[in-house]
Amino acid sequence: MYEARIETVMQNLARRGLSQMLVCDPRSIQYLTGAYVEPGERFLGLVLGEGRTPTLVYNEMFAVPADLACAVRTFNDTEDPLVPAADLCDPARPLGCDKNLAARFLIPLMERGAASGFVLASDVVDDARAHKSAEERDLMRTASRTNDAAMARFKELVREGVTEAEVAGQLEVVYRELGAQGHSFSPIVSFGANAADPHHEPDGTRLAPGDAVLFDVGCRQGEYCADMTRTFFFGEPTQKQREVYETVRRANEAAQRVVAPGVRFCDIDRAAREVIEEAGYGPYFTHRLGHQIGLDVHEPGDVSSVHEAPVEVGMCFSIEPGIYLPGEFGVRIEDLVIVTEDGCEALNAYPHELEVLG
Amino acid sequence: MYEARIETVMQNLARRGLSQMLVCDPRSIQYLTGAYVEPGERFLGLVLGEGRTPTLVYNEMFAVPADLACAVRTFNDTEDPLVPAADLCDPARPLGCDKNLAARFLIPLMERGAASGFVLASDVVDDARAHKSAEERDLMRTASRTNDAAMARFKELVREGVTEAEVAGQLEVVYRELGAQGHSFSPIVSFGANAADPHHEPDGTRLAPGDAVLFDVGCRQGEYCADMTRTFFFGEPTQKQREVYETVRRANEAAQRVVAPGVRFCDIDRAAREVIEEAGYGPYFTHRLGHQIGLDVHEPGDVSSVHEAPVEVGMCFSIEPGIYLPGEFGVRIEDLVIVTEDGCEALNAYPHELEVLG
Repeated sequence: MYEARIETVMQNLARRGLSQMLVCDPRSIQYLTGAYVEPGERFLGLVLGEGRTPTLVYNEMFAVPADLACAVRTFNDTEDPLVPAADLCDPARPLGCDKNLAARFLIPLMERGAASGFVLASDVVDDARAHKSAEERDLMRTASRTNDAAMARFKELVREGVTEAEVAGQLEVVYRELGAQGHSFSPIVSFGANAADPHHEPDGTRLAPGDAVLFDVGCRQGEYCADMTRTFFFGEPTQKQREVYETVRRANEAAQRVVAPGVRFCDIDRAAREVIEEAGYGPYFTHRLGHQIGLDVHEPGDVSSVHEAPVEVGMCFSIEPGIYLPGEFGVRIEDLVIVTEDGCEALNAYPHELEVLG
Repeated sequence: MYEARIETVMQNLARRGLSQMLVCDPRSIQYLTGAYVEPGERFLGLVLGEGRTPTLVYNEMFAVPADLACAVRTFNDTEDPLVPAADLCDPARPLGCDKNLAARFLIPLMERGAASGFVLASDVVDDARAHKSAEERDLMRTASRTNDAAMARFKELVREGVTEAEVAGQLEVVYRELGAQGHSFSPIVSFGANAADPHHEPDGTRLAPGDAVLFDVGCRQGEYCADMTRTFFFGEPTQKQREVYETVRRANEAAQRVVAPGVRFCDIDRAAREVIEEAGYGPYFTHRLGHQIGLDVHEPGDVSSVHEAPVEVGMCFSIEPGIYLPGEFGVRIEDLVIVTEDGCEALNAYPHELEVLG
């Protein structure tokens, strides 16, 4: 499997006119070799070169599978990892660079002339990762099924006076009980006006009657990520809360309806945005509609007005329209979908209907 | 406070012969402006230039404090953030680059000639961050006191048959109850032979009598990080386990004893390593002795054999010797210390004595 993936990447690279590449994104390396290392500030790189054996350069303190499909070069905390990394590159040819390659590695590689040029080329790996295999689709389904089951339990944690942080701190236990490895990202639990900040960090805010209760949560299971948002109301919602909720819901569902092979990412964004604009809330939907997802919770190629490529079978992304009314409340409803031959398959089955808690 | 920090950075920059810098590390930006944004794949940058107003370039979807000390330039998901970023740079002068600046931003900035050269210059910020102010030291003390209290509770979660993942999943609740914001890093809980992998990820391994039980854990509180390791034994340890434990303990304490202003980082590493080598376990202590810490759990300037700079008053770092016997068990004992006028202050008071659980 890993050999085939590397072969695809090498073909993509050749189409870009390149013959060598330095991959450093830990999840791309996992995708291509099976080894998952979170190196922190330390160097980690997979060097791919036409006619050469793919070679992983990593700090010896990290554990990698014994049956790795590629060659390895290790270093320790007292050695310069850029010596083996540069040594594996052909200085006479340009090097494709991972989009995440940090300046602390890239600038020294440039200064020592490790390649004849340095070109952003992550798309050759990202394109491969964007097309999920049948096995990967199953893993995405499993993770999202767990997320659905978890959401049903998360809403039970909500009671008057509880803080966002108290609720957030209990989520991981639930995920692990359900068989997940843990969070796929730091969970967002927002009450009331905090839900108007799309990326609010759970804090000491206490739940009060009338609050919106937003959960943007995901687990990692079998190495693949789930990501879903539901917004509840604690006590009977106002007319305005209902109107906003139903607008977001219609936007989500309108977007899901237009997904099909050949439809552009921007058209999917447009389908949702139109619903929100027509309801008069356009200025309050302040972000893109979604993002691709897989081994990483955010993968490149977003669902936004400026991404004009068509979606293809096997691509997996979020559809997450929202309306954020500063000082009042916010609503977001997010599902993951996979593009199928004739439309899309929603990975989340947790209902969209407005739910009142408490 | 932020103006004074930026002033220090500008002076450090001038000493490096530079007049402008692009800071992109989120914690460095928090240190210099008070705004903490975790941008994920999106651009985030603070542009500093001699005689120009420091300006933060960020995606408008993120919340920043209203009373920010610097100027701001925002962009949205449909705009190119490198337009304002390049616009704020002087193309006729070299630009100091953050060590974490990703290739997806650095290479395009180079291609559009945003500066006359690109130089790694994170040390100008890192040096400032390494010298903790009195207020920062207090925050570090508070976070570590919480970590001590948490450790006393974590060991109570251990019982025969429990899995590492089950224990790991319960830690965040404890941290939040004790007033922390959550984990400062993904916690390591290792049983038995898993403790021989310094960076083991908690999994379904069940606790059995005779196992070592290693907790490498930390919380974030008041934005600052704690980080501590203790190794327990579940049931009476063997002679070898005792010997290894006491060796690691002596290594930790030997290192703490030599810390004082002017002593080199490498000498502190040596003091611990010598104890372990003399006991015959040298090859099984496979990593550096420690790392600096503050707003980030790993800050630059490690405690290793190749870092020959002297420590200075106010620097804060971990001392974490370990012995890892593959297939058997591992022991690590880690404390944080702050360098004082005449030695060091240990931030962790949780005892070093061998503890038997169960």
